[in-house]
Amino acid sequence: MKCTIVGATGYAAIELIRLIELHPHLEIVSLISDSQTNQEMNDLYSFMNNKQFPVLTAFSLEQIEAVETDLLFLATPSGISTKYLKQLDDWKGTVIDLSGDLRLEKSLYEKWYPHESVDTVLQKKATYGLTEWKREQIKDSRLIANPGCYATAVLLGLLPLLEERVIDPSQIIIHASSGLSGAGKTLTEQTHHVRSSENVRLYKMNQHQHIPEIESIAEDITGQQITVSLATYLVPLNRGIMATMTLQPLVEKTEAEWRTWFIEKYKQESFIRVGQTDPEIKSAAGSNYCDISVYLDTRTGRLTVVSVLDNMQKGAAGQAIQNANVIGGYPETLGLTQQPFFI
Amino acid sequence: MKCTIVGATGYAAIELIRLIELHPHLEIVSLISDSQTNQEMNDLYSFMNNKQFPVLTAFSLEQIEAVETDLLFLATPSGISTKYLKQLDDWKGTVIDLSGDLRLEKSLYEKWYPHESVDTVLQKKATYGLTEWKREQIKDSRLIANPGCYATAVLLGLLPLLEERVIDPSQIIIHASSGLSGAGKTLTEQTHHVRSSENVRLYKMNQHQHIPEIESIAEDITGQQITVSLATYLVPLNRGIMATMTLQPLVEKTEAEWRTWFIEKYKQESFIRVGQTDPEIKSAAGSNYCDISVYLDTRTGRLTVVSVLDNMQKGAAGQAIQNANVIGGYPETLGLTQQPFFI
Amino acid sequence: MKCTIVGATGYAAIELIRLIELHPHLEIVSLISDSQTNQEMNDLYSFMNNKQFPVLTAFSLEQIEAVETDLLFLATPSGISTKYLKQLDDWKGTVIDLSGDLRLEKSLYEKWYPHESVDTVLQKKATYGLTEWKREQIKDSRLIANPGCYATAVLLGLLPLLEERVIDPSQIIIHASSGLSGAGKTLTEQTHHVRSSENVRLYKMNQHQHIPEIESIAEDITGQQITVSLATYLVPLNRGIMATMTLQPLVEKTEAEWRTWFIEKYKQESFIRVGQTDPEIKSAAGSNYCDISVYLDTRTGRLTVVSVLDNMQKGAAGQAIQNANVIGGYPETLGLTQQPFFI
Amino acid sequence: MKCTIVGATGYAAIELIRLIELHPHLEIVSLISDSQTNQEMNDLYSFMNNKQFPVLTAFSLEQIEAVETDLLFLATPSGISTKYLKQLDDWKGTVIDLSGDLRLEKSLYEKWYPHESVDTVLQKKATYGLTEWKREQIKDSRLIANPGCYATAVLLGLLPLLEERVIDPSQIIIHASSGLSGAGKTLTEQTHHVRSSENVRLYKMNQHQHIPEIESIAEDITGQQITVSLATYLVPLNRGIMATMTLQPLVEKTEAEWRTWFIEKYKQESFIRVGQTDPEIKSAAGSNYCDISVYLDTRTGRLTVVSVLDNMQKGAAGQAIQNANVIGGYPETLGLTQQPFFI
Repeated sequence: MKCTIVGATGYAAIELIRLIELHPHLEIVSLISDSQTNQEMNDLYSFMNNKQFPVLTAFSLEQIEAVETDLLFLATPSGISTKYLKQLDDWKGTVIDLSGDLRLEKSLYEKWYPHESVDTVLQKKATYGLTEWKREQIKDSRLIANPGCYATAVLLGLLPLLEERVIDPSQIIIHASSGLSGAGKTLTEQTHHVRSSENVRLYKMNQHQHIPEIESIAEDITGQQITVSLATYLVPLNRGIMATMTLQPLVEKTEAEWRTWFIEKYKQESFIRVGQTDPEIKSAAGSNYCDISVYLDTRTGRLTVVSVLDNMQKGAAGQAIQNANVIGGYPETLGLTQQPFFI
Repeated sequence: MKCTIVGATGYAAIELIRLIELHPHLEIVSLISDSQTNQEMNDLYSFMNNKQFPVLTAFSLEQIEAVETDLLFLATPSGISTKYLKQLDDWKGTVIDLSGDLRLEKSLYEKWYPHESVDTVLQKKATYGLTEWKREQIKDSRLIANPGCYATAVLLGLLPLLEERVIDPSQIIIHASSGLSGAGKTLTEQTHHVRSSENVRLYKMNQHQHIPEIESIAEDITGQQITVSLATYLVPLNRGIMATMTLQPLVEKTEAEWRTWFIEKYKQESFIRVGQTDPEIKSAAGSNYCDISVYLDTRTGRLTVVSVLDNMQKGAAGQAIQNANVIGGYPETLGLTQQPFFI
Repeated sequence: MKCTIVGATGYAAIELIRLIELHPHLEIVSLISDSQTNQEMNDLYSFMNNKQFPVLTAFSLEQIEAVETDLLFLATPSGISTKYLKQLDDWKGTVIDLSGDLRLEKSLYEKWYPHESVDTVLQKKATYGLTEWKREQIKDSRLIANPGCYATAVLLGLLPLLEERVIDPSQIIIHASSGLSGAGKTLTEQTHHVRSSENVRLYKMNQHQHIPEIESIAEDITGQQITVSLATYLVPLNRGIMATMTLQPLVEKTEAEWRTWFIEKYKQESFIRVGQTDPEIKSAAGSNYCDISVYLDTRTGRLTVVSVLDNMQKGAAGQAIQNANVIGGYPETLGLTQQPFFI
Repeated sequence: MKCTIVGATGYAAIELIRLIELHPHLEIVSLISDSQTNQEMNDLYSFMNNKQFPVLTAFSLEQIEAVETDLLFLATPSGISTKYLKQLDDWKGTVIDLSGDLRLEKSLYEKWYPHESVDTVLQKKATYGLTEWKREQIKDSRLIANPGCYATAVLLGLLPLLEERVIDPSQIIIHASSGLSGAGKTLTEQTHHVRSSENVRLYKMNQHQHIPEIESIAEDITGQQITVSLATYLVPLNRGIMATMTLQPLVEKTEAEWRTWFIEKYKQESFIRVGQTDPEIKSAAGSNYCDISVYLDTRTGRLTVVSVLDNMQKGAAGQAIQNANVIGGYPETLGLTQQPFFI
């Protein structure tokens, strides 16, 4: 499939390019950047200069069609994707939007994001691209709302439990730590090395836009109302998210039984690995895996589910490629079999 | 006061030495290390070699008395302090034990620690050295159980709420991240730079020995039974703890009112600062401050209290010096007024 | 080719496994570890547990032949490889030794390493596996001394200059910084996170075993005597080496001409990239590239060549695979086209 | 002495404030920031909020005199200090300028800095504040050009050798690594955590403005012409510089003799420590020490001197306070006796 990436100089785009180069059936035909038009990727990012990439061009439907794009990735920030989506409404190809702009219906979006929502009809056309839970719909969709990084980690841990109604949907307390790439490429005081290193910072407490994403998607998939508390932290590392969900189980099982239960739930999945104790970000960073661990506290009766993934891969570009594989009819793991970096 | 430090080559001892050198009324008269007897601190730690320290000696009551020790710090690991405490039972001076060995009564200790408990009578003589809450007892005590790092962070956040009975004592969920110095100087796979950097690791889930410390001290001080869930994480930085407590309030207040309430509670305290939003470890690392932040989620009704401190200072050596100041009748902040490093 | 890895639990082996899994024509048939025999890689390194690896076995020729090994990687430390090499002398397959044990002739080896040298005849059979400079010999060799990480970085920068005799071979001053993976998996005070982070340490000053490797290989290839000063530093990151060589040019060229000269020299090479100013480790880490930059100081007349690579890839496992490609007759870049991580 | 700090929100100012608070005879009476006038330090930097600081005011001579300033620190960037210096020319108090604006005579300054030089008469009034080498002149000076961080590290290592004419002044090759605080608070791509962490970057090769500072000061003090090569690196840590100087000795001594020679040279100095092998930044970071190590390579005859210091302290604010102590007639170590952080 011929791929065009819009927002080609951001972190998500860089990771998409890295992954597409390892993919036998995807090819980059156009790189779009409205802010750095006419520049060469190799000049902006010398680390890439082993290969000739298309020069950065401005967004236009003509350009996208001229290069015969099959698959267009919007690797643009929330609020910006909307602008492009409106222009792409009649386009025949497939769009995977990595921003939050298609994930929430209008009223929720406008409550949690500081932008106007995309057109409601357009938003409803989109399939939420959480591959493991929406595979069938993704197959037939030409518009994918690629999930948020925290939302992916959390939903992969919660959905089996919510679907089987074995936890209290009103007692879900989540703490999630993310590396600095999660804060994006924009220069801020918080991402300056001297501020971010030797530091942990709590941010957007009770206000993170992945809260309504988690809640509305879980409601959509499992048919019950859920409410979550989410605390998000920046920790001094580049890639990776660890999300810990403290839960109230409605059925009695031992810790070992819960683990087996999760293994069973995900036994068909290539990218979900269940079982590790003392979970760590390093197990998944650099890969498309989501590692899930389960604990039961016999003193308090609480169930804890921990979900670890690489926010740039399974939490963004990797899952986008996974969705492209589903859409293209390729094996879902194609081009995504790299081991975690570990070192 | 003349000070002897036992376990003089560990991290807590190094921080004690750093702090004592800045203190006008404390002086190091003896450094004890059973494993590195007869060595010089300056040879082991060249960064210290601006000053001549006493040569490391083996533990003996004779030595401790020969140098006229007033104040003895046990900067030894849990399980090891017990050995020394038994020999110090009849000694006339003041002992501040930085290990966990005096913090829990026998049955709890032996349930959570892999060691035999110290003598029960001895343990009961000890005062828990959470300065802000035990100041009067510390003043008259000659045996201090210096609090654990996580326990200090958590208790300073919880105790005002529990004392006033404004939160549900059975709904306390704590997530706490610590820098690597919290794992101690022992060489382990987990503290190797290649493993610890670019990583976050959950450890001792539901099994951390600070769980019973938090519960029993809170029960002792507030007279009600409490049960906490505690998830502890290693994050890739040297110093600092951030503890987030998710709570169920029993009274109605706005977030601003809760903040004011906390400010009022701690208004007499020099080392407790209330108020910051987006709390970060860097605010307190390198100092003896404990920074407390408060959030109320109007959607879920949950109250979140965040407590940040430097695990080497307020969570260990700094609080030990603070207690020494109380015992010695000095101003409580003496020698402890360094600003956080920040840079 | 069927591959066996000896020393399968070390860092170099882990990177070999990562790379072999991405290679279409290499397959792991046996993993050997004398210290962790009968264990599963998946138990030791949970991050790998997406695939079933052979159980760890003890070293034996029978085992190596039973699995029909074509290519055996010795990912064992210097001093240990020797032990295995002696047993493999009559074996028919190809051996790539990642240690220093085959790189130096006996007298040099025993001067710089604290071990006895391998048998001299055996050592002389080995080809030094600096692919770009020994490609033809590697093709026909069944015993490869895979180059050291610093030596690779330095030699790729120096050899074109020495071969053309355009620099003074007695005026070569090298400063090289390495990430912590260069120090290996062994637990030491220096690799404890609390010591290594927020630190730079100079080590093995004038005594690094890559000094004679650089000198003797350069002498062997260029036929002139060279003497280098080498200062090596540990810097707080995982992967990567930056080697800066301060040189005295014997011919007059501008900085731009030197750059063009280097580009010309390496224009056929897939893994050597010349040209970037402000070189940085992040350009190459995670890839098999070696990035070379050139500066001329018009004030002092000194030429500076900077060489950057990933010590785990081009400086170890990547170059081993590159050599395997040469030996196997595959395209040299096969399985090695991953972009640097960058994020 | 009553202190005013101009440029009060930058890194150097923050460190000055940290140090002044620990100093018994210095007091902050005014904080000046033209960009953040009328703001409170406590609002900008919550970590400071244990103390009430003067509100930030705009620069004016009236304000400086109204608060009876004795000592004014210009903690402003190069190019900006000049603006203030011109207004302070007639002021009676003492000025310590931490920028580069007073360090170089006009023609050198304008060659290496992108700014116009300060008035020549004014520049010539200034004393270069390298305390150990200019103590007597500093004592009587009312205008101090506080040295640059790299220049301090390098000059403290080189000056004894140049003064005694025991090294070749044309053969001085310096490699120096600095933590990210050296890059200042300004937000740049290079200081974004994702770019700076897991990275080393060479910058300003042959063009660093500390080159002429080192050369001209060494010439001024030792009366001979010197030319240095300087390569500067950003390494992923907050504080600290390690400068390695590769030198050609003109006299024969063993490594041990060189070490003794250096110890002898600096035996009167409180902040210079000679002797450590395997020097590391962690030995000095957080303190005002400069640690000097010496190596002789018997193979090449080269002498290597390594100098380590904290760029925020001995390389900036600490040396400024040391100079203030000299000027004020206080013990030179007053307020500067903190041990390195180490942990």
